[in-house]
Amino acid sequence: MLLEAVFHRPKLNWCYAYDLETIHLRLRCKKGDLTEVFAWIGDKYMWDQSKELVPMSILTSDELFDYWECAVKPPYRRLKYGFQLKSGDQTVWMNENKFFTEEPVEPDRLFEYPFINPADVFKVPDWVKDAVFYQIFPERFANGNPDNDPEGVLPWGGKPERDNFFGGDLQGVMDHLDHLSELGITAIYFTPLFLATTNHKYDTADYMEIDPHFGDLETAKRLVQACHDRGIRVLFDAVFNHSGKTFAPFVDVLEKGDQSQYKDWFSVRQFPLEVKDGVPTYDTFAFEPMMPKLNTQYPDVQKYLLGVADFWVREVGIDGWRLDVADEVDHQFWREFRQTVKAANPEAYILGEIWHESSPWLQGDQFDAVMNYPFTDAVLDFVVRGTLDAKGFAESIGRQLSRYPRQASEVAFNLLDSHDTPRLLTLCKGDKRKMKLAALFQFTYSGTPCIYYGDEIGLDGGADPDCRKCMPWDARDQDLELYEFYRTLIRIRKDLAPLRTGSIRFLTADAGGSALVFERKLGKERVIVLLNNLDTAQTLKVNHGGANWVDAWTGNLFEASEEAASLQVRLPAYGYAILKKQI
Amino acid sequence: MLLEAVFHRPKLNWCYAYDLETIHLRLRCKKGDLTEVFAWIGDKYMWDQSKELVPMSILTSDELFDYWECAVKPPYRRLKYGFQLKSGDQTVWMNENKFFTEEPVEPDRLFEYPFINPADVFKVPDWVKDAVFYQIFPERFANGNPDNDPEGVLPWGGKPERDNFFGGDLQGVMDHLDHLSELGITAIYFTPLFLATTNHKYDTADYMEIDPHFGDLETAKRLVQACHDRGIRVLFDAVFNHSGKTFAPFVDVLEKGDQSQYKDWFSVRQFPLEVKDGVPTYDTFAFEPMMPKLNTQYPDVQKYLLGVADFWVREVGIDGWRLDVADEVDHQFWREFRQTVKAANPEAYILGEIWHESSPWLQGDQFDAVMNYPFTDAVLDFVVRGTLDAKGFAESIGRQLSRYPRQASEVAFNLLDSHDTPRLLTLCKGDKRKMKLAALFQFTYSGTPCIYYGDEIGLDGGADPDCRKCMPWDARDQDLELYEFYRTLIRIRKDLAPLRTGSIRFLTADAGGSALVFERKLGKERVIVLLNNLDTAQTLKVNHGGANWVDAWTGNLFEASEEAASLQVRLPAYGYAILKKQI
Repeated sequence: MLLEAVFHRPKLNWCYAYDLETIHLRLRCKKGDLTEVFAWIGDKYMWDQSKELVPMSILTSDELFDYWECAVKPPYRRLKYGFQLKSGDQTVWMNENKFFTEEPVEPDRLFEYPFINPADVFKVPDWVKDAVFYQIFPERFANGNPDNDPEGVLPWGGKPERDNFFGGDLQGVMDHLDHLSELGITAIYFTPLFLATTNHKYDTADYMEIDPHFGDLETAKRLVQACHDRGIRVLFDAVFNHSGKTFAPFVDVLEKGDQSQYKDWFSVRQFPLEVKDGVPTYDTFAFEPMMPKLNTQYPDVQKYLLGVADFWVREVGIDGWRLDVADEVDHQFWREFRQTVKAANPEAYILGEIWHESSPWLQGDQFDAVMNYPFTDAVLDFVVRGTLDAKGFAESIGRQLSRYPRQASEVAFNLLDSHDTPRLLTLCKGDKRKMKLAALFQFTYSGTPCIYYGDEIGLDGGADPDCRKCMPWDARDQDLELYEFYRTLIRIRKDLAPLRTGSIRFLTADAGGSALVFERKLGKERVIVLLNNLDTAQTLKVNHGGANWVDAWTGNLFEASEEAASLQVRLPAYGYAILKKQI
Repeated sequence: MLLEAVFHRPKLNWCYAYDLETIHLRLRCKKGDLTEVFAWIGDKYMWDQSKELVPMSILTSDELFDYWECAVKPPYRRLKYGFQLKSGDQTVWMNENKFFTEEPVEPDRLFEYPFINPADVFKVPDWVKDAVFYQIFPERFANGNPDNDPEGVLPWGGKPERDNFFGGDLQGVMDHLDHLSELGITAIYFTPLFLATTNHKYDTADYMEIDPHFGDLETAKRLVQACHDRGIRVLFDAVFNHSGKTFAPFVDVLEKGDQSQYKDWFSVRQFPLEVKDGVPTYDTFAFEPMMPKLNTQYPDVQKYLLGVADFWVREVGIDGWRLDVADEVDHQFWREFRQTVKAANPEAYILGEIWHESSPWLQGDQFDAVMNYPFTDAVLDFVVRGTLDAKGFAESIGRQLSRYPRQASEVAFNLLDSHDTPRLLTLCKGDKRKMKLAALFQFTYSGTPCIYYGDEIGLDGGADPDCRKCMPWDARDQDLELYEFYRTLIRIRKDLAPLRTGSIRFLTADAGGSALVFERKLGKERVIVLLNNLDTAQTLKVNHGGANWVDAWTGNLFEASEEAASLQVRLPAYGYAILKKQI
């Protein structure tokens, strides 16, 4: 037994309350090293009478490790625990400090989850698990009202540059909600809508005003209402890490220097505000002088931004916030933010933009989820870049699942591209088969999938600003076959609950392999997904377990035969199948 | 290289801000496995121009692992980082997900400490590092005012029982402050003083009233002032996990059941409140019906308790709170509590009672420190119980140091006994030599040491209630030699800054060994501490490094000789020496 590989720490992803009565325990060990693992649990105030061994099972694995898990419901919401590890004949006990070859006699040195206090339980909005998101970059989605076009607006469909405008607006979105409803979309994430100078609006001038080129407060309210009428939820983008250079408090500091009443709204290293050798004398986003970092620990700034957060949820009815550059803002602020937003709407979704590991934000006190770029990386590495084989892909997904509490994984924001990356079709070098395969995994995996506007009708584009092209509305410019693919994929995801909240287990994911088969299981329901990540056809085998299976896409029936334990599923190049067990 | 043993995660004890400009990075690996480790750091917005390799060194070790550390000061307070690990000829790079044999080409998959936001920096009160604490159980320290004695009070010095009273009070403490000042005490932790029925007062009836058997608000204010006049700080005990059965809101719920306006102040599983088969129908401390658990997430309870926390700090001037059963209260409440207390006095010390690993509370948003019972265990296992050899002891201390940010270790509350344990002298079976050796480590190690009242004059006692005897004030009943030992030990700790805040390195700590030698280093100052945990004399060797050394206890000079690299230090049975390098 490789003791150096065994890992457990209190709380975090290792021991957390999944709901008001359930605690999940996880233990990491060297891959393949342990044959059985037990959680050794009891009540701290009557350990000897209550202690018991609860079997754990492998939740997931990555390159080096297996992650074992069990769920327990301590009757008095208190848990004292250790572990019993078995590898063949060898048995080892583990407490908070050490390993033992016999049951340790000092239960006071065990781990503890001292009490399930409801205030600490990480509660995510239920609707997100079932949602299908659509990301809209408003300047480029549709121009519904030419009267509010910016000066110098260019004809719809021109080449996007860093600083040009095409007149997209909120009326344009309202005009095209049918497109989204028919596709099956149930939630929209809008990049910023507030007054700002740029076309992307990440340089906010006023957090309380819709940019007049997009509409106004009334248009926003109508838009939210129109979405809600169709069962579509709405997320706005909160750029709270920094403001724009035209934000009134910043303008005041620019003018008055340290005499400004707003000087503490920002983090100024040296007055006056200027740029020396390419570096601003005040904190900014990156080194961008036009995006001064807000001092979110200054009470006036907190009050202002929390008022903003509350207003749009409470008064306009938005269903949550996506938080720009969320990791560079202090945790204390986000804790206040969560309390404010959840007070306004307990079912609001709080989504942080974090590209790296996000454990410090996903403990229940800050965000519900993050933009899941590690997911993006894994899928693109496997399907598009070819830098991961099936085994490496399954391991990457396994590692991600191990890192967070289950509720965080259930509402992870799984995107394949965005306004910050090249478009999926372009990454696939125009190969729709690869694009579909990537989307197929996205929609058959846990978390909430998001389509970047236009992907569904074949819009392409390289890195920013090319990924921000105008949405083509003439059907002749739309790939309707691709649209139909996405529509079907969404329908299947909605039909099959295991794809949304079932457990996941990889059945085929070999070293050097390009075939991926995995099972999603929820209660008695089972779905098996098969992907052929190869430019030639291949036949994949799946154990039928004595049941018949139906292809959710084609309706074809795969009957269990008594002669062979496996079904043979023939997949074309980059083909796929979603098999549902007949119950 | 054993990759399964290599561990790093963002934030926590692995990557944290030590102050407003410094980040500490730590990496764990198999003990003895790596020859060199480098942190590979840079600014995320100009990685290629800023990246550099910073050497790390071994901070500490335990049974299985070495923990490497370095401190870096990123100019723009942002850090992107990975690690470079060397084992002989082998070099491995590590990013957030994997290991590589060459420099990985995707810096966007590195770890990040996104920004040092001052609000998140874990700031502990400076004074605690230099403090010497004294714990007082007020009912048993001194009876200064017989007029306020409880009914049925027993003569001072009788046998303590669970429910008897001897009349100790606040006036008694004031009368004996000379004793504490002469000893060198700079801070007192009082077990509860508020109105309650028991002699220990952990069953609070009114958090705004001093128990009349102890005094009143005015007495408390005079006591705090008298302490402050002598440079002694004062900690009160906040029993916020539960109240007593005579707490007015609980009395109301007992009487009115679910009709009580206070029913949400507690967590009731089933009305009426009663005890069924030994288990109360409402949440309590342990299964104790007279200690109902407070619902600290209910706004009225929060408001009340935060008002209490504020009042005693702001109006009475106490210097902090010790928090009873702190781990069973919700984290959200403690975050509010910290903000309230630090607003009232930024230098207040917040000390939680947690017996197990306390990482979830020691991240800067909740407590400054915890009652360090793992420290207690290690010292007692080594000196008293003999269940740890010198190697095991050094490893246990090393493990503890690895688990927390440095600022938490610097103010850890290091106790050897308390009102909840048998007394140190009794654990030592009356062997003062062992007791002194244990105290010697306590006072030459980081953190703030605490003496349980009476230990310093030889008071003994077994488990509760025997450990709560009356303090003998007749000099003939006091062990004045032991008192002198503690007085000298405290003076030496105060004289030698490295003992308080220096780094620690074990020089001798062998398997099966009973000799312990360790170095404390601060800037150019070095102190070497030697302990002989054996009932016979032994001679320990210390490399003199070409310098002369002075025994801080005896003043004896140890001169470096050119013939031998080591000093020979002869220690009697359970002897010790504290050698200070002459600069």
